[in-house]
Amino acid sequence: MRKFYSFVVACLFAFSAQAQDYTKYVNPFIGTTNYGATNPGAIAPRGMVSVVPFNTSGGDTSFEKDSGWLSQVYEYTNTFFTGFSHVNLSGVGCPDLGAVIVMPTTGDVNIHPLQYGSSLSDQKAQAGLYEAHIDKYNVDAKVTATQRAGISKFSFPAGKANLLLNLGQALSNESGAMVKVVNNQEIEGMRMVGSFCYNNPKTIYPVYFVMKVNKKADKTAVWQQHKYNDGPEAAWMEAYNGQQRIIEDAYYPIIGDSLGTIFSYDFAEPTELEVKVGISYVSIENARKNLEAEISNVPFDEVAKRAKERWNDVLSTIEVDGGTDDEKTVFYTALYHTMIHPNIMSDINGEYPEAKTRRTKHTDGDRYTVFSLWDTYRNLHQLMTLAYPEQQLNMVNTMLDIYDETGWLPKWELNGTETFTMVGDPAAIVVADTYLRGLDQFDENKAFEAIMKSAYPVEGGNPVRPCIDSYIKHNYVPVDDELEDKLWASVSTSQEYYVADFGIAQFAKALGKDDKYKEFSERADGYKKLLDPDTKFLRPRYADGSWYADFDPNAGANFTHNVGYAEGNAYQYNLMVAQDMPGLIKSFGSKKVFINRLDEIFDTDQFDMANEPDMNYPFIYNYIKGQEHRATERVHELRKKYFTTKPDGIAGNDDTGTMSAWVVFSMMGIYPDAPAVPHYTITVPEFDEVTIHLDKKFWDNDQLVIKKTGGKTNKIKSIKVDGKTLKGYFISHKDLVAAKTLEIITY
Amino acid sequence: MRKFYSFVVACLFAFSAQAQDYTKYVNPFIGTTNYGATNPGAIAPRGMVSVVPFNTSGGDTSFEKDSGWLSQVYEYTNTFFTGFSHVNLSGVGCPDLGAVIVMPTTGDVNIHPLQYGSSLSDQKAQAGLYEAHIDKYNVDAKVTATQRAGISKFSFPAGKANLLLNLGQALSNESGAMVKVVNNQEIEGMRMVGSFCYNNPKTIYPVYFVMKVNKKADKTAVWQQHKYNDGPEAAWMEAYNGQQRIIEDAYYPIIGDSLGTIFSYDFAEPTELEVKVGISYVSIENARKNLEAEISNVPFDEVAKRAKERWNDVLSTIEVDGGTDDEKTVFYTALYHTMIHPNIMSDINGEYPEAKTRRTKHTDGDRYTVFSLWDTYRNLHQLMTLAYPEQQLNMVNTMLDIYDETGWLPKWELNGTETFTMVGDPAAIVVADTYLRGLDQFDENKAFEAIMKSAYPVEGGNPVRPCIDSYIKHNYVPVDDELEDKLWASVSTSQEYYVADFGIAQFAKALGKDDKYKEFSERADGYKKLLDPDTKFLRPRYADGSWYADFDPNAGANFTHNVGYAEGNAYQYNLMVAQDMPGLIKSFGSKKVFINRLDEIFDTDQFDMANEPDMNYPFIYNYIKGQEHRATERVHELRKKYFTTKPDGIAGNDDTGTMSAWVVFSMMGIYPDAPAVPHYTITVPEFDEVTIHLDKKFWDNDQLVIKKTGGKTNKIKSIKVDGKTLKGYFISHKDLVAAKTLEIITY
Repeated sequence: MRKFYSFVVACLFAFSAQAQDYTKYVNPFIGTTNYGATNPGAIAPRGMVSVVPFNTSGGDTSFEKDSGWLSQVYEYTNTFFTGFSHVNLSGVGCPDLGAVIVMPTTGDVNIHPLQYGSSLSDQKAQAGLYEAHIDKYNVDAKVTATQRAGISKFSFPAGKANLLLNLGQALSNESGAMVKVVNNQEIEGMRMVGSFCYNNPKTIYPVYFVMKVNKKADKTAVWQQHKYNDGPEAAWMEAYNGQQRIIEDAYYPIIGDSLGTIFSYDFAEPTELEVKVGISYVSIENARKNLEAEISNVPFDEVAKRAKERWNDVLSTIEVDGGTDDEKTVFYTALYHTMIHPNIMSDINGEYPEAKTRRTKHTDGDRYTVFSLWDTYRNLHQLMTLAYPEQQLNMVNTMLDIYDETGWLPKWELNGTETFTMVGDPAAIVVADTYLRGLDQFDENKAFEAIMKSAYPVEGGNPVRPCIDSYIKHNYVPVDDELEDKLWASVSTSQEYYVADFGIAQFAKALGKDDKYKEFSERADGYKKLLDPDTKFLRPRYADGSWYADFDPNAGANFTHNVGYAEGNAYQYNLMVAQDMPGLIKSFGSKKVFINRLDEIFDTDQFDMANEPDMNYPFIYNYIKGQEHRATERVHELRKKYFTTKPDGIAGNDDTGTMSAWVVFSMMGIYPDAPAVPHYTITVPEFDEVTIHLDKKFWDNDQLVIKKTGGKTNKIKSIKVDGKTLKGYFISHKDLVAAKTLEIITY
Repeated sequence: MRKFYSFVVACLFAFSAQAQDYTKYVNPFIGTTNYGATNPGAIAPRGMVSVVPFNTSGGDTSFEKDSGWLSQVYEYTNTFFTGFSHVNLSGVGCPDLGAVIVMPTTGDVNIHPLQYGSSLSDQKAQAGLYEAHIDKYNVDAKVTATQRAGISKFSFPAGKANLLLNLGQALSNESGAMVKVVNNQEIEGMRMVGSFCYNNPKTIYPVYFVMKVNKKADKTAVWQQHKYNDGPEAAWMEAYNGQQRIIEDAYYPIIGDSLGTIFSYDFAEPTELEVKVGISYVSIENARKNLEAEISNVPFDEVAKRAKERWNDVLSTIEVDGGTDDEKTVFYTALYHTMIHPNIMSDINGEYPEAKTRRTKHTDGDRYTVFSLWDTYRNLHQLMTLAYPEQQLNMVNTMLDIYDETGWLPKWELNGTETFTMVGDPAAIVVADTYLRGLDQFDENKAFEAIMKSAYPVEGGNPVRPCIDSYIKHNYVPVDDELEDKLWASVSTSQEYYVADFGIAQFAKALGKDDKYKEFSERADGYKKLLDPDTKFLRPRYADGSWYADFDPNAGANFTHNVGYAEGNAYQYNLMVAQDMPGLIKSFGSKKVFINRLDEIFDTDQFDMANEPDMNYPFIYNYIKGQEHRATERVHELRKKYFTTKPDGIAGNDDTGTMSAWVVFSMMGIYPDAPAVPHYTITVPEFDEVTIHLDKKFWDNDQLVIKKTGGKTNKIKSIKVDGKTLKGYFISHKDLVAAKTLEIITY
């Protein structure tokens, strides 16, 4: 059946704190197809829990999680719904979590997802609320969430009804669960997840949950999949060999690779059930505490109202004026998507599992998780530093805690595991960038120590920076190492190391460590060694200085494997030297040659909006006198083409909000184009006025207004900071947060 | 390699309480081949825990658990040892438990049982102690146990050593385990077991454990079997798809169908490790309490000493004099085997899982489990009533508690589950027999109520007595019901109902319930309806009174399927009317015809010593004047043929001590041949003197001596009770426990 795409525009609630409701501009369906990998489920800002319709497993499904490399529990064009999962990732590129799935059904009990799955209709989503009609069962479902718990309201028709909790099905390829029906209103248990992307396939761990239902079930049961037995046992086991068994009234733990529970009801009249699920990564007890502290006896509508309020609190930090509703929807949905990950991992009592060992630890702040740093170092943390500095500080402190706990800063951290996804040393850049922007209320000595550790060879191996020894020796990672399978993508990795080393140099300078500044500045300069003067590409190069011959700058697009480059080709990495754009331009021999290459990339469709390395390319025009207007042209064109209000309105994987952060900054007219360079480059905003409510705890100024004035063109005539004309198209972070007004005057 | 069979005869310890060491006559290897299904592992009397060498899984094994229907973790002729399991059944006919397996290895870690298994040499076993040399690793192993915990001492050579805990391998066909390495000396977890015999295949439940090691491991790890994935995931997972992963330093719960732990050491010199495992069916916490209360810091040798003392306490209740060491070994090993099951299930704090619901309950006494009642109602409980009345009372009270908890008396109870193995209503017989023997300190009204429930049709079905309605209607279960698959073995089932109904009648009479006495006496008399006057067999009969035509009294031996009979043929059930032997003899028309049949059964090898229905046949001669000496002849011949000091020295499955109880009684010269008839029939004892130390709490007399005097023949001249000549070959329980001396005078 045809799915109905709907976006709740009505403002349903009155807000005390805010004059305006910005949640009405959040459309959670954006990015739910075309591999955006976002979902329309309900989540609170940076929530550990999200309640998401699972529709990528089984059925007549275009995008089936096991038939494709699908990293999402929800795909907009799919039609086969099998329940609401309670732990989920948004906008990532590997399958994991998507577990603790609750499905309402009616009639006789059926525990097979392929049989009990249903189509959905009348899907609606807003920040913190998702609703749909489950066609097969004529059940209306509404789900909402707090940070650590989800709540679902199912409106059943009269007759037999069932609540199925499935701990077998999940997006994660891991298996193994324990479940205990505590009584006919409560279930507790855990489920194994982990091994995200399989770079570190031993990182499996349990997620704990407690589920409470507001009405006593008439019958409860647990099902467990029996393993298949050969031999004489098979004859004795007969029909249930390798099949599921339904065990009624089992109020004790049952364990296995695949199992679930059944709560059955027989309703005399149409009845609403409220199902609450608390989650923890520490213990079942903490999952119960989270549930009780955050939801307890709060009715569904009140939880939904609070979720909306919390979202508006967050979204109203940046207020925009002018622009169409669609533009506002693109903007606020992007801002919403930057507020999903990193998410909190600490329980209501401050406990969380220490990284790696998973020993229980306590924090007074927020412990964050899901650090997709190769993505987010480029812009998401800069957005947090500017507009949500307290969050960013907690994130940096989490990263330093991870260093304390594991001996290493994170690279791609997920629920206390290091997944080692992608390349480079992005944590160093995030820490340096945050410090350099003046958000320095963290232990800079420990931070520097942590950064130093990854920056050098380490006895037993440096897991963050493979081949760091040959990188230091040659000032690039020779392709020899890659061909010997010592690492992935020698050119890309080198480029990431240059960015990190540049950040380290700046950080060292700020800390007065001049020798380190010098050393790492030299290391950062190594990109020039990879720049082939003939082709003007950064190319794979052997240790002996010769170039890797089998080189095709066109190869490697669309994530196909390509020697030298990680998820991209030589074009997409060609100009990823944001930290030294003047130097790069100079290395090209002439500005003309450089601009030709920049134009060529866009004009021959080598530019990939869906991936991070070339995200800053459109802003590069701002480095070339006379070309600056083209930055705005490119940015506006790309934003309008790739980021819309449609379900395919994110260019590709949202990459835990990195794509969205690009949108947020771009539409505001400022972009942190060079990580660890504490500035923003300026283009024409898409709104007439953007007000960023700054956090007075961290910045002197409490409000920054970015104004677009002048003519109707998108060509900048001048830029004024508090009335004074800005020279050039860059403004330092320091100046920006000190300014009351940034005025962009167009022709 | 060739196994060395050894039996520790040396008396290693001095005993304070007993003058003599009877444990030296216990040879736990008896019954460990020829399907005796006992094991040489270490166990305390009625222990929840036994530590048993597991050698029936994998390897070059004659008896492999999955290639045959093998119900034992140890088989004497096997040579491939894979560790010590800590929960085990002894002498049963279906595979279950055999879980929580600990294996010491040396060298590099290997987690595959087929690869790490080893042969054993120098095996030695005594009551409460087993030892062996693990050849492949040059490790000496000694294991002993308390009631709720096991302890193993492994003597490692210098170098790398590993302690493997395998929660994947087990005798149980169930799977699913959770394990948590608490620290480098402690592990906790649970493992699913259950579905014994698959009559009730939904009865799965966890067994909880805590394992402590006396030395800190250098390294700890958990391994988990990853499920096999098809599709794109398989490519990403590569080598570990469907394989085991070793996860180092995992101090958090890991769950799955197959997993285990690794504790690794590197010993500078030869080193002894002590591994303690506490078990509970309630919780991990209780497993820890059991371990700490019973073993705590007690060193291995002290635990072994205490186990031996406890065994001697129990064994010395019956002291024998005269007879060879071999005869004493057969006797005391049999007595030992009657003290394995039923075993305690309550934890040190009195908690146990209530039957069926597994809710935690508390008892002040001992909660027992493993009630193989179809077997044990025939003699084991009578032995307990006579010599261990406190245990028997606790068993009856456990049975009544099970009635309270589930609404039904047990049939074949195992760890709180009802397995519905075999046929009939044996609990009624046990309860009646116990009461009729004067061990009546239980709630007789509740007992009668419980018995009444199973004795009649019940709305929704009577799970204890299927087809009870047609049984009452016809006074036998018509073969029609069997052919319609409503039950198994219509003749055998009817016969079991008759025995039960006879017991109920006697119990009713004792309680003054004369109408019930009459009613159930009539029901018990129904066996005559199944006795075909032509063939003198109890035969399958249709509801319309006609005989089932396809009848062959030879069919059905050796457990092959046979209409009418459960695990036996028409011969083996022909005379199973012990409750009314005079009536049966009369029904045969003449004593001659009857004796001919009795002789025919023995002389044509129809007698099956390995199964219960005909166990009492040799004693039947005592019912026929002039034939009494033949009872002794048969009994002695059978005992000597089937019950020896050899590993095959039990006729077949020990049936949780039922075969062994036959031996104990037979060798003492008294046998409770007719359940619910509170008497014993007398044959010539094999010993000159048997002293039973009676429990003064229950019997007036504190000691009964059974003496053999007179000539050297095995023909009884007269029997005297405290000097007075006994008329006939039967003595009532009441008279026996009042007597100081039972003297059997032979010619």
